[in-house]
Amino acid sequence: MTDDAERRRDRLARVALNRIGEPGDLRLAAVVGELGAVEALAWASRPVPTGEQSGEREASDRLRADVGERLRRLDAAAELAEAERRGLRFVIPGDAEWPLQVDDLEHGPQLVERGGVPIGLWVRGPIRLDTLAESVAVVGARTATTYGIEVARELAADVARGDWAVVSGAAFGIDQAAHRGALAGGGPTVAVLACGADRIYPAAHEPLLEHLARHGAVVSEAPPGAAPMRVRFLARNRLIAALTRGTVVVEAAPRSGALNTASWADGLSRMVMGVPGPVTAVTSAGVHTLLRRGGAVVTNGAEVLESVGGPGRHLAPEPRGPVQPRDALTPRQRQVLDGVPVARSVTTAAVARTAGVGPAETEHTLDELLARGLVDAADGGWRLADPDRPTLGA
Amino acid sequence: MTDDAERRRDRLARVALNRIGEPGDLRLAAVVGELGAVEALAWASRPVPTGEQSGEREASDRLRADVGERLRRLDAAAELAEAERRGLRFVIPGDAEWPLQVDDLEHGPQLVERGGVPIGLWVRGPIRLDTLAESVAVVGARTATTYGIEVARELAADVARGDWAVVSGAAFGIDQAAHRGALAGGGPTVAVLACGADRIYPAAHEPLLEHLARHGAVVSEAPPGAAPMRVRFLARNRLIAALTRGTVVVEAAPRSGALNTASWADGLSRMVMGVPGPVTAVTSAGVHTLLRRGGAVVTNGAEVLESVGGPGRHLAPEPRGPVQPRDALTPRQRQVLDGVPVARSVTTAAVARTAGVGPAETEHTLDELLARGLVDAADGGWRLADPDRPTLGA
Repeated sequence: MTDDAERRRDRLARVALNRIGEPGDLRLAAVVGELGAVEALAWASRPVPTGEQSGEREASDRLRADVGERLRRLDAAAELAEAERRGLRFVIPGDAEWPLQVDDLEHGPQLVERGGVPIGLWVRGPIRLDTLAESVAVVGARTATTYGIEVARELAADVARGDWAVVSGAAFGIDQAAHRGALAGGGPTVAVLACGADRIYPAAHEPLLEHLARHGAVVSEAPPGAAPMRVRFLARNRLIAALTRGTVVVEAAPRSGALNTASWADGLSRMVMGVPGPVTAVTSAGVHTLLRRGGAVVTNGAEVLESVGGPGRHLAPEPRGPVQPRDALTPRQRQVLDGVPVARSVTTAAVARTAGVGPAETEHTLDELLARGLVDAADGGWRLADPDRPTLGA
Repeated sequence: MTDDAERRRDRLARVALNRIGEPGDLRLAAVVGELGAVEALAWASRPVPTGEQSGEREASDRLRADVGERLRRLDAAAELAEAERRGLRFVIPGDAEWPLQVDDLEHGPQLVERGGVPIGLWVRGPIRLDTLAESVAVVGARTATTYGIEVARELAADVARGDWAVVSGAAFGIDQAAHRGALAGGGPTVAVLACGADRIYPAAHEPLLEHLARHGAVVSEAPPGAAPMRVRFLARNRLIAALTRGTVVVEAAPRSGALNTASWADGLSRMVMGVPGPVTAVTSAGVHTLLRRGGAVVTNGAEVLESVGGPGRHLAPEPRGPVQPRDALTPRQRQVLDGVPVARSVTTAAVARTAGVGPAETEHTLDELLARGLVDAADGGWRLADPDRPTLGA
């Protein structure tokens, strides 16, 4: 058999296994990991011998009993051809487009009995998955606040301007703000869905999803046509975490699904980041718990890129007030400077009294300030050279 | 000489040195640390020999030239008596009331040329400084927002209810909210001033400071009558950090003095904590920088007490949503449960189709759900036992 024929056989086996297994099914991932897709499919298709087990059947037997019949009826080649006709491609391990970082799931965490490397990924849209090596997940609450929406949009726009892809889940609230921000920033953005990549969920996001299918990418581990079910959301969150270099949670109530994505990211040694918000807002309470457990505080896209981009790649400027000439002074010099009046000129003794510094120290220090051009010696005394005298207090 | 007489001599020497030196003066702290207060006073009082140095004089000589004359004119016993008459006491190392944690400053950090153990502390009010072993600093911006004021008040009230003292600087904004919150919580609170403990600064806080002098304490390292000068604020911040087990910054713009207090706390290995706020608010930008550098995120007083109180002392409850029966289920059980309709009863095959799970696995799982009382077997099929069916999505 040629290499091409083998690849084709592997791909069709994976189409079939993907159709009968749930995303993140650990049993299936284990069997495929051990036997390879073709052998795993043969094993799963074999009828369960009757009478082999009495009483309660083993889990693996139940699996085979359930999937065997369906597998025997399934035409993987026809499924794949139909999907491709509708603009979907099926990316599998070994393809040039396969995002290698997802292989971290092989020895990665298992949460609520989900885990493992996907059998394959269905993709709709021009962005290639192998370009997501430089990507960040921006996720958060469906019931977001105006604050959260705006921050997510700004942050995602900045990430996209840095030419990093923004990955999210196309849900209401923070997710859609992240996608829209990335689009506004002119950068790549990818939606990972819990339903089939050909489905529109939520329905209200049809324009967004169609736009992403034309200019970005819509990705799913679930087969075409699959409905959005709760367990698929959990498996989807694992994929978002695995695809990206780090996960930013913008807003999240204590039980938000975005925290589940963050747990996956943490288990995969990805950066976990959170955007702080008012401690009085329940929409930020989940984020703050994340930050208390060691998540990194990020307040904008530059800080996100700094966190995930490695040293020297991105340097987020630290917020700071204006630099003032007095910043360069010693405390003693500042103290004496504070004792020199703005308007009139006074004697050294008067400066010393006002500053609360002895006359010898004051005289010495005034000479230093004169050299720096901060005071003038005028009318036999001293006055400020700079009319913008700094005021007291921090 | 009796011990009492020696203590008296030490105290008066410290009154004199405190009068002529600035709070946090490293030279003075070094001399007192080496020679003791009585010897340091004798050294400082000695006239500088003329002609001993030509050209620019040494720093220590300038100090002696400045302070010698003033020291010889100073009547420490009369100063102390007058201060005590006005309700001030002078607490020095060796006193039962001396707060031992302040001695950490001896080998502590030096910031902007300030540092060292205070020569003594002037106190007005009934709270003893040795009770501040269990205390927290709550500090922040003068130009605080309504959000910051309210959070500071709540947080301080909770700390005070835990019977930990709240220490702050009596400034406008966060400081005053911290004091008022602690008073509302019925707990101890102490103001540390940059001016003399007998002075009212800011003037608008006269009622607050007089209340603290009657029911809490007003503390200063600066001698009675001293004006609030910039360098004294820096030295004061070091004292707030040293007195307390940790410093909470509630709101702070990038150059806020509260960040200076946090730097001292960090240098003294105290807990540094920050209350997050909107990333869009400049009043929280300084706090977020602090948190990005490793400060602990705190959102309420319970979390503050948990941070400073050591393990098991205080346990802040984590914010969480309501626990639901489905939380105890496996993903597979949840998936099948999601396939059981609320109103009518359906066959196992119908549940299997809706859930996307094979019939054998579905039957097995439905038996488990029946045992848990989550589904009913009715009319030859299955229906939900609980009318409050959980909805999809996180």
